Amino acid sequence: MTWKTAVANIPYGGAKGGIGCDPGDLSISELERLTRVFTQKIHDLIGIHIDVPAPDMGTGPQVKQTMAWILDEYSKFHGHSPAVVTGKPIDLGGSLGRDAATGRGVLFAAEALLNEHGKTVSGQRFAIQGFGNVGSWAAQLIHEQGGKVVAVSDITGAIKNSKGIDVPSLLKHVKEHKGVTGFHGADAIDPQSVLVEDCDILIPAALGGVINRDNANDIKAKFIVEAANHPTDPEADEILSKKGVVILPDIYANSGGVTVSYFEWVQNIQGFMWEEEKVNNVLKTYMTKGFKDVKEMCKTHNCDLRMGAFTLGVNRVARATVLRGWEA
Amino acid sequence: MTWKTAVANIPYGGAKGGIGCDPGDLSISELERLTRVFTQKIHDLIGIHIDVPAPDMGTGPQVKQTMAWILDEYSKFHGHSPAVVTGKPIDLGGSLGRDAATGRGVLFAAEALLNEHGKTVSGQRFAIQGFGNVGSWAAQLIHEQGGKVVAVSDITGAIKNSKGIDVPSLLKHVKEHKGVTGFHGADAIDPQSVLVEDCDILIPAALGGVINRDNANDIKAKFIVEAANHPTDPEADEILSKKGVVILPDIYANSGGVTVSYFEWVQNIQGFMWEEEKVNNVLKTYMTKGFKDVKEMCKTHNCDLRMGAFTLGVNRVARATVLRGWEA
Amino acid sequence: MTWKTAVANIPYGGAKGGIGCDPGDLSISELERLTRVFTQKIHDLIGIHIDVPAPDMGTGPQVKQTMAWILDEYSKFHGHSPAVVTGKPIDLGGSLGRDAATGRGVLFAAEALLNEHGKTVSGQRFAIQGFGNVGSWAAQLIHEQGGKVVAVSDITGAIKNSKGIDVPSLLKHVKEHKGVTGFHGADAIDPQSVLVEDCDILIPAALGGVINRDNANDIKAKFIVEAANHPTDPEADEILSKKGVVILPDIYANSGGVTVSYFEWVQNIQGFMWEEEKVNNVLKTYMTKGFKDVKEMCKTHNCDLRMGAFTLGVNRVARATVLRGWEA
Amino acid sequence: MTWKTAVANIPYGGAKGGIGCDPGDLSISELERLTRVFTQKIHDLIGIHIDVPAPDMGTGPQVKQTMAWILDEYSKFHGHSPAVVTGKPIDLGGSLGRDAATGRGVLFAAEALLNEHGKTVSGQRFAIQGFGNVGSWAAQLIHEQGGKVVAVSDITGAIKNSKGIDVPSLLKHVKEHKGVTGFHGADAIDPQSVLVEDCDILIPAALGGVINRDNANDIKAKFIVEAANHPTDPEADEILSKKGVVILPDIYANSGGVTVSYFEWVQNIQGFMWEEEKVNNVLKTYMTKGFKDVKEMCKTHNCDLRMGAFTLGVNRVARATVLRGWEA
Amino acid sequence: MTWKTAVANIPYGGAKGGIGCDPGDLSISELERLTRVFTQKIHDLIGIHIDVPAPDMGTGPQVKQTMAWILDEYSKFHGHSPAVVTGKPIDLGGSLGRDAATGRGVLFAAEALLNEHGKTVSGQRFAIQGFGNVGSWAAQLIHEQGGKVVAVSDITGAIKNSKGIDVPSLLKHVKEHKGVTGFHGADAIDPQSVLVEDCDILIPAALGGVINRDNANDIKAKFIVEAANHPTDPEADEILSKKGVVILPDIYANSGGVTVSYFEWVQNIQGFMWEEEKVNNVLKTYMTKGFKDVKEMCKTHNCDLRMGAFTLGVNRVARATVLRGWEA
Amino acid sequence: MTWKTAVANIPYGGAKGGIGCDPGDLSISELERLTRVFTQKIHDLIGIHIDVPAPDMGTGPQVKQTMAWILDEYSKFHGHSPAVVTGKPIDLGGSLGRDAATGRGVLFAAEALLNEHGKTVSGQRFAIQGFGNVGSWAAQLIHEQGGKVVAVSDITGAIKNSKGIDVPSLLKHVKEHKGVTGFHGADAIDPQSVLVEDCDILIPAALGGVINRDNANDIKAKFIVEAANHPTDPEADEILSKKGVVILPDIYANSGGVTVSYFEWVQNIQGFMWEEEKVNNVLKTYMTKGFKDVKEMCKTHNCDLRMGAFTLGVNRVARATVLRGWEA
Repeated sequence: MTWKTAVANIPYGGAKGGIGCDPGDLSISELERLTRVFTQKIHDLIGIHIDVPAPDMGTGPQVKQTMAWILDEYSKFHGHSPAVVTGKPIDLGGSLGRDAATGRGVLFAAEALLNEHGKTVSGQRFAIQGFGNVGSWAAQLIHEQGGKVVAVSDITGAIKNSKGIDVPSLLKHVKEHKGVTGFHGADAIDPQSVLVEDCDILIPAALGGVINRDNANDIKAKFIVEAANHPTDPEADEILSKKGVVILPDIYANSGGVTVSYFEWVQNIQGFMWEEEKVNNVLKTYMTKGFKDVKEMCKTHNCDLRMGAFTLGVNRVARATVLRGWEA
Repeated sequence: MTWKTAVANIPYGGAKGGIGCDPGDLSISELERLTRVFTQKIHDLIGIHIDVPAPDMGTGPQVKQTMAWILDEYSKFHGHSPAVVTGKPIDLGGSLGRDAATGRGVLFAAEALLNEHGKTVSGQRFAIQGFGNVGSWAAQLIHEQGGKVVAVSDITGAIKNSKGIDVPSLLKHVKEHKGVTGFHGADAIDPQSVLVEDCDILIPAALGGVINRDNANDIKAKFIVEAANHPTDPEADEILSKKGVVILPDIYANSGGVTVSYFEWVQNIQGFMWEEEKVNNVLKTYMTKGFKDVKEMCKTHNCDLRMGAFTLGVNRVARATVLRGWEA
Repeated sequence: MTWKTAVANIPYGGAKGGIGCDPGDLSISELERLTRVFTQKIHDLIGIHIDVPAPDMGTGPQVKQTMAWILDEYSKFHGHSPAVVTGKPIDLGGSLGRDAATGRGVLFAAEALLNEHGKTVSGQRFAIQGFGNVGSWAAQLIHEQGGKVVAVSDITGAIKNSKGIDVPSLLKHVKEHKGVTGFHGADAIDPQSVLVEDCDILIPAALGGVINRDNANDIKAKFIVEAANHPTDPEADEILSKKGVVILPDIYANSGGVTVSYFEWVQNIQGFMWEEEKVNNVLKTYMTKGFKDVKEMCKTHNCDLRMGAFTLGVNRVARATVLRGWEA
Repeated sequence: MTWKTAVANIPYGGAKGGIGCDPGDLSISELERLTRVFTQKIHDLIGIHIDVPAPDMGTGPQVKQTMAWILDEYSKFHGHSPAVVTGKPIDLGGSLGRDAATGRGVLFAAEALLNEHGKTVSGQRFAIQGFGNVGSWAAQLIHEQGGKVVAVSDITGAIKNSKGIDVPSLLKHVKEHKGVTGFHGADAIDPQSVLVEDCDILIPAALGGVINRDNANDIKAKFIVEAANHPTDPEADEILSKKGVVILPDIYANSGGVTVSYFEWVQNIQGFMWEEEKVNNVLKTYMTKGFKDVKEMCKTHNCDLRMGAFTLGVNRVARATVLRGWEA
Repeated sequence: MTWKTAVANIPYGGAKGGIGCDPGDLSISELERLTRVFTQKIHDLIGIHIDVPAPDMGTGPQVKQTMAWILDEYSKFHGHSPAVVTGKPIDLGGSLGRDAATGRGVLFAAEALLNEHGKTVSGQRFAIQGFGNVGSWAAQLIHEQGGKVVAVSDITGAIKNSKGIDVPSLLKHVKEHKGVTGFHGADAIDPQSVLVEDCDILIPAALGGVINRDNANDIKAKFIVEAANHPTDPEADEILSKKGVVILPDIYANSGGVTVSYFEWVQNIQGFMWEEEKVNNVLKTYMTKGFKDVKEMCKTHNCDLRMGAFTLGVNRVARATVLRGWEA
Repeated sequence: MTWKTAVANIPYGGAKGGIGCDPGDLSISELERLTRVFTQKIHDLIGIHIDVPAPDMGTGPQVKQTMAWILDEYSKFHGHSPAVVTGKPIDLGGSLGRDAATGRGVLFAAEALLNEHGKTVSGQRFAIQGFGNVGSWAAQLIHEQGGKVVAVSDITGAIKNSKGIDVPSLLKHVKEHKGVTGFHGADAIDPQSVLVEDCDILIPAALGGVINRDNANDIKAKFIVEAANHPTDPEADEILSKKGVVILPDIYANSGGVTVSYFEWVQNIQGFMWEEEKVNNVLKTYMTKGFKDVKEMCKTHNCDLRMGAFTLGVNRVARATVLRGWEA
């Protein structure tokens, strides 16, 4: 274990770099052989106390199967080692609650931020850009907590209902129609306009760089919770800062997935599976503690949340490095 | 870890094959040397993540000692490894609650079954064939829960008291007289008749094959909880099914012992001992969840409990096998 | 794991021998190289399942740093292994609550003893000889529980206030003035006289041999809780016994530190950090159980607490040895 | 190394069991995958000091390639290990002289036997049944030593020339026509009659069981050198013994191949290749010494060469076993 | 062992990459620590069957000491392993004859080339550019074989004596005066003119690129033996080819050093030291065989010696790669 | 391999400490178990590249069997490892010529010494104190070389024949009568007087300290070859030095046994057995080279042979130590 997800305050987690390749038009059989030979070549460089691969973008719909192949091939060399990958199928040692983890982490992050400002999720209006695994889970959990989801977009289009979209119905619609377009309980809008809809909290949950100088001035939300990786570019960051918009940075806000990957590793190491309720509760504890630590860093250094989060992470790694000594 | 006690829903437990040999007239010293040389020959084939031996029938009264010898000899080759055997003495890493585990599991299984039928243990009448470790613990725990034990047999004979036997007194009597025969608080009956006594729940807790076409039609219990291994033969199974007797199959009903062996392994892996209360509580969680899973399988496939339990187990192993891939 | 801190009832803890050298006038750089070369020479003799070094007297103020160097050097040979040392900095896997652990264990020990005699800490008068890490933490925690600290000494002198010293103020004073001398809320007394002050419980928390035939007859406390190692010599032991003074022996009373070192190892093994509250609660469970076990041994063998504690420890080791067999 | 080719007096050679499968109609690609997966499954059971596979009957024409695949796959698990298989291609660590080794060993065996009877190879008349790798090399080397090859057979037919066949011409003919049939320098004969041709030394170099009660009485040779495995069945053995025919048994006579496999292993272990001349010289030393040892055993026990060879082998294994002790 | 010095026909030698750094103004103590920390970082990437470091240019005068430090540090991790480096001091397992090996190899190469043209070293006139380890050993050995060294240069200047320089006297002079300049038995000449002196064989034994279009046309030697690495640039190669000058390429001609490094490894692997005479004899066998193999390749492909040497090396590596199979 | 038998110039030999215990009245079965358990306890401290046990005094007549038990037990832990002990039975990898090695080394040492003084063994008169393995082999080999053995003693007595004892007859007598006493071809003498018999070369081949101030002045030999360990005490050393007696010290003179133990290790490492002739020839090379090295040291430092031998050994170890560097 050489690298810590320091902001998320994970004390033992190995580096969880995302592994994936665009399956493109490879057959499943070709993908299996590719994955196995790749694992043969790196088997000495990964390990339960070295580096622990996890899924990331581009791994395609069979990603859990891919993790299973890595586990199986690795185990030929090192014996059965479920902790060597995370994001595994539950039947091979995956964690309950892993699917929803990033979305659930976004909820906990938003809660922590709103509580800090004397609010709760209940009654707030949310606009969510992106309705994949992260966005749809966030929407569902926000809805359960009494939040109003007023606008949603995905690659098929965007919809809006200022009274709040009925999320369970939307999820059913999406499952059937492979996209939000055509949902009866909301009005179609220009996909681009989701980001500048009237709302309290904006959750960009798709690609990077979507909030930039072209639209930053038009954003109406008071809070942005970055569920995607680097959705806000530096120029937009500065514009929004001047406007008083509070941004909860990605490095903290979308860390729920990697955190539950760490819990999966812990369960594998301990040989004992957690119930889903425990997974969710411990995730909440980590996310809440993380927000408090970031906030404290902001006070000490009088900086915004993004700088506070980076400072927190860098400090933790630096302190560990110094403690290891000069001949490390 | 290559094999799961799938029905019992043990996610990490290694195969726990029973090890034992009839000590016959070997001296303790001969038995120790035999155990050590045997361990030398198999030390590379067992291991905390490979296969984990546990006691089984025929290991005789010094079985915990035998497990200690295996542990000691194995550790010469691989360093101190308490997790390599279960059923160890507590002073060497055994689990609290391991002794009572199979009997306690029978209680939890019976509770789950009765709850399903809108009943509780309290007030029900139980007949128990066999009064060894499993039967006597089951009797004691049933008594504590308010159940009536109306008939009991062992190799010395059988007794009956339709008002309910005073189990604590019986245990004392058995300790002193090495058998149930002669107990004053009940009437002696023909040992064979225990199985056909008038009762609500019959618990065969001795050998296999005792319920067969010769006595199946005479059984009066509405429920049979199989504490022994395969006490009911296929013919009897069919007869009882037609009579509407509900049988809780051995593969589920007597899995409490192997489940706590798994907990012992977990405690060893984690380097931390559980209090007895925790052992019992987690066992209850596992047994209750197991019943629910079996029941669900029965609904899906419209089958009886025995078929449901087998289907559940086979499905879990099959799913894991498929997930590992075609070149596993 | 070859040796158990048997009295403290630690089932899995490796031997935790204290490691240290008087840094004397070595530079930090020289100390680092010395520590690293020493670790190179012993790296095959220690290990997470063999022997686990921990800090002890003489390791000086940079002791956590020293543990970090051992960890870092050891990991060059065996991969990242936080469990190989305890007393580490928290950023490298140390346990929350480790600093206060010995002092907190002294509190729990005193509580257990007082409860046995129908008393609680609240309202009792304590004299504490030594105000280093152990003594000052004990004083603070006793104060929080409502105990009165009526006399305290350290290498700078001794103070007394029969109404109870305001411990938080004293801690502040000591932090500023590097000693108890000069504290305004108490009267200066002869350092030697702390041991014979009028109090209910005397806690020697400095060096060995301080209670001896020269002062044993003058001791006024009814209870002595040995926070230091062997503060009472055998002659004093006999004198005090005749006077009816009850002594809680060091092997039990100051085992809080080694016990939390064991918890640190457990957390490292499990890959999961405990919250401080859990550390303290489990420590209390262990200390309370330990007192009960010692007491039971005293009843069985009709002996005093010191003999009971030794008997308990020796018995546990002996029993494990016999169970391992004759060819171990 | 657990088993010695005891008769051949190989002091360090691991067991060299032949490995092979009939390639049948497998494609080369299928054969490679089959070989690799097989190697994955047994990689922990073979090894340079455990068991060392070598080619045997049925491995087909690509056998050296098969050995290379085993080497390559094994090396993924254990690092580059040329000594783990023998019969490898020379470019991957095979031995010079390995191809001719069995045939050359037959020559040395025949020489030793003839010398014992005051004769040399020169001038003797040989009949050779089978003209594959072993038979053709034997013929060529016998020819070089001045022996007359008077009859030869293979699966295409048999030829005879009582003045001695021109072996180099025959080899050229066989290379071109894939068989001995049609060779101009000899007369075609019935293939069965090769064994009963008029000659001094008969060399069966094809399959087992060819010399039996049907033809034993008709054999005219005074010496039989068994180049094939068990060409003489027990009945024939008895008949020939009565007739005074001296049989050099297969276990000794065809051990040249396994002996040079051992030399290949030695070269790999030593990291240094032998020149072909050295391979042949050491082989001669071993074969000559082997004959002497067998002969001595025959004198001690007053038995024939077959029994002498078996006795020699069994004795060596038995002596080593006894020396290892009773707890081995 | 993954790479073969294929031209030199070394069957088992691991890759022997040169290791070195310019000691510059580092103190010996700093150099030792640098070497040790470097070794710590790569210790898992080198090994007696993986890659075996050896000295190369720039390692300075203490190079054997540097190899000893690598050996010592590596052995802390893997146990005593003399075979892990070559070019070691003899007291730690270095080979006799290693110092002179490159120069001696140049002699054997020149002999092979001259023999091919019906000549011997005796009586031929040699010009040697560079008089460091390689050039001075070559000069001494050529002198011993009866060759005339007619011109020599080094960084201090150049000398010439068409009757042949007295090499032993020159060596004594160089030892005393740190250079060839001022030697009484020869005339001083322009250092550049050494390459174009009148001689039969020119031996460039210093840096690369010294023979180029500026001087290629003026070269009078009929043979060039490349003792340096790439002393002849491609343009000069073409010019000299047209003039009929025969060039023995560096990849073959200066391989004596790496070949004896391989012998050093063999001696370490075998645990047995060779006498110097054996080292030199085996070197001669390898160099002579190497020339023959290159020559044969030249005939097959009708090419010059440089192309023949490259083709030989590439072919050997390619053949081994194909033999390992497609899933290697 | 950490220590070299430096005087004997063994470059790769591990430390060959003698192992043994007086079998006293242990049964063979008890001795086997003792040896096995001892081996279990030290198996990680010995090894083919660490320390290699060999027989020494007190191991009794079954010493080769003892070495076989060590080998067998060690191999349970580390796989078959013949090189881990020397002095093994030949059937398990022992060396030919090992039995005679110390005696043969004494012969070679005496030859080297005599040659230095312009003499040969032939015609010289030898007195040999001790007729065990070393003394009897030395006598036999000296006899074969034409030397006269004029006096011999053992624990049964002493004999003398100034014309030379017929050694083959004596050996036969000793085999039959378990001692030299009663041999007809010589006269019985006082055992003590053997050391002071009239002879050219005295060979003490029994215990230490036999040549001391009590008899040193009476010694008539011109040369003493120390076949025993430290037979000459320091006082005697001084007296003899003044008398001009030349002493060949034990550290060199009796190193033949340990040297062939090293050859045994080499053969095991190389997987190839040496013929006896080779063993003896290489031993002679080592002994002759050793004498030359000692002699050279004597010239450099102007000292006697004992001091020369010690200086040689200490220098070699020191030089290796310095070369390993300061952080070794």
